[in-house]
Amino acid sequence: MTLSQDHLPIKAPLSGASYSAVELAPENDRVWMLEQRELPDHERYLEMTDVATIEAGIRDMVVRGAPAIGIAAAYGMVLAAGACRQGDQAYLRALQDAGALLKGARPTAVNLAWAIDEMLALAAKHASADPASRVEQMASRARDIHRADVEACRTMGKLGAERVPDGATILTHCNAGALATGGYGTALGVIRAAHEAGKKVKVLADETRPYLQGARLTSWELHRDGIPVEVITDNMAAHFFQRGEISLAVVGSDRIARNGDVANKIGTYGVACLARLHDRPFYVAAPWSTVDMKCASGEAIPIEQRASREVTVIAGKSFAPDGVNARYPGFDVTPARLVSAIFTERGAVDPVCEDSMQRLAR
Amino acid sequence: MTLSQDHLPIKAPLSGASYSAVELAPENDRVWMLEQRELPDHERYLEMTDVATIEAGIRDMVVRGAPAIGIAAAYGMVLAAGACRQGDQAYLRALQDAGALLKGARPTAVNLAWAIDEMLALAAKHASADPASRVEQMASRARDIHRADVEACRTMGKLGAERVPDGATILTHCNAGALATGGYGTALGVIRAAHEAGKKVKVLADETRPYLQGARLTSWELHRDGIPVEVITDNMAAHFFQRGEISLAVVGSDRIARNGDVANKIGTYGVACLARLHDRPFYVAAPWSTVDMKCASGEAIPIEQRASREVTVIAGKSFAPDGVNARYPGFDVTPARLVSAIFTERGAVDPVCEDSMQRLAR
Repeated sequence: MTLSQDHLPIKAPLSGASYSAVELAPENDRVWMLEQRELPDHERYLEMTDVATIEAGIRDMVVRGAPAIGIAAAYGMVLAAGACRQGDQAYLRALQDAGALLKGARPTAVNLAWAIDEMLALAAKHASADPASRVEQMASRARDIHRADVEACRTMGKLGAERVPDGATILTHCNAGALATGGYGTALGVIRAAHEAGKKVKVLADETRPYLQGARLTSWELHRDGIPVEVITDNMAAHFFQRGEISLAVVGSDRIARNGDVANKIGTYGVACLARLHDRPFYVAAPWSTVDMKCASGEAIPIEQRASREVTVIAGKSFAPDGVNARYPGFDVTPARLVSAIFTERGAVDPVCEDSMQRLAR
Repeated sequence: MTLSQDHLPIKAPLSGASYSAVELAPENDRVWMLEQRELPDHERYLEMTDVATIEAGIRDMVVRGAPAIGIAAAYGMVLAAGACRQGDQAYLRALQDAGALLKGARPTAVNLAWAIDEMLALAAKHASADPASRVEQMASRARDIHRADVEACRTMGKLGAERVPDGATILTHCNAGALATGGYGTALGVIRAAHEAGKKVKVLADETRPYLQGARLTSWELHRDGIPVEVITDNMAAHFFQRGEISLAVVGSDRIARNGDVANKIGTYGVACLARLHDRPFYVAAPWSTVDMKCASGEAIPIEQRASREVTVIAGKSFAPDGVNARYPGFDVTPARLVSAIFTERGAVDPVCEDSMQRLAR
């Protein structure tokens, strides 16, 4: 992972943009991962050649965003397949180990586990084929997952854009954009689609402490696309709701339970509370791979607890006194009753309840 | 203002603690102001000898917190009095100019204007006295304002502490502590009084972006007093309310309108919304000097708009891309209906409405 470069070294990235959170090299032996922790200062791509490095990249949030880490994990499985030239039993064991490693990187997003299970299902089918063919097939499946994600984003984006009035000011939290997905974005896909449809929209981006995805990533993406965006601190959203400046809120998701409860970046639940209290719609956009039909409700979704110093240290400087700790639940759960609609590539979940979820699950 | 030192150079500071936001030198010719922007890294006091420097200290937030800037302004008026050895007309003009300068430093907190008007009223009475006597009287009045503020904090603290259950977890926003007042604190005064009364309390301190008063100042004060405190990002409060971890919220205020609407640090209104939605009390603690009976409702309170870069730049590093701006309303207004009670040195405003306010105003 020592190699890095300033521009995406892929001629036609599957993301469909001039940048991408993660891409597989044409030779299927390397993955390029955008170092998102350095955005917006530097657009730098890390080259990764083994599954352990991919796992570290997911865990340490070089790449983040539920769909993007799912795709990164799928590409990690391609590298794991390439690293094994042994027979079927050893091959399957190696891939299961790689899958277990990757699944442990981050617990909340279900897309990660989903993508690995897809790759393992394929591996089980072709385990006795020759090594070169196995890698070829794994790479093809991983690219399909990537392509399908971008396609899903475009579909849900169009669906969501129908609910965006012309002239809307849209609040979003965290980054559910091209950087968080295969490309185009979920929540930002809705905003992009509204913009592409000729609607005049502007965005208030919650800065999203502590990782500042909103200030660093969402504003970077939208500004690049020429969509007006202003950053606000997370605690300002209530004030702008109160003043009637926000037309609607739209966010992504890391896991959606069968009853429509939505896990997403910490702070999302607060946005949903404020939207309800001020009678504004609160929308979620996510690919179906984010839905966990085995999960009955939000209570069953594991909430990742991250380190205190990720809150107290900013730009290398500690802002809390020695001896004082911070809490850092990485995610929260918004109950289905606060969600106006969920946009997926299979259609809109509206009203958000188990019946609607089951209808699309079939 | 070049001089500075590591410890408060006053033997018996009026704050009653080993530190103080602002103190007047015994000789009445200098003011010591704690450089709060450097906390918790450095406890450093700036020496100020003229009113222009005091004004800059207020404007640039060396000192902040409505009662503390009121006291700093009163001390600034002492320096202005000391700088003028002319007759009564010139003296009054000089003090009126100094008052106008100081009032312009920050628009939202009413304590600033209140303290200056108190000092100007005294100046009008003694304008024809000799210069030394004028300074003596101004200093004495300013110290009375300071002493009365600390006394008020202790009184409202006891009053508020009655509503704090043993074992409570208390959410607070910004810093309404000794550092924001003459000493002891308003919201933190309530917490201190509950702690001193032997109640087991712990505090969740909103970090309070963008200035991070919670992470830097509130946690510093409470940790120093041995009161358990954890820092959270502002967007986590909703999650901890949802989990039932928060018993009540208490905050300070920069201006309270006649109808009980409360202006306070940006983000306060969101806390009040969440407290109401989760059926937890939301309290405000403030000295009566924060009440503006001339102001009919929150709509009439001017909201300071600060610079974009105070949001986007942290520890000298910009976190937003070039060309992207941030919004920064410094304050928001919480409507009276969301406030469970206001604790003042004159008693509790409960229910929070114009009738209750008028009763205490008499």
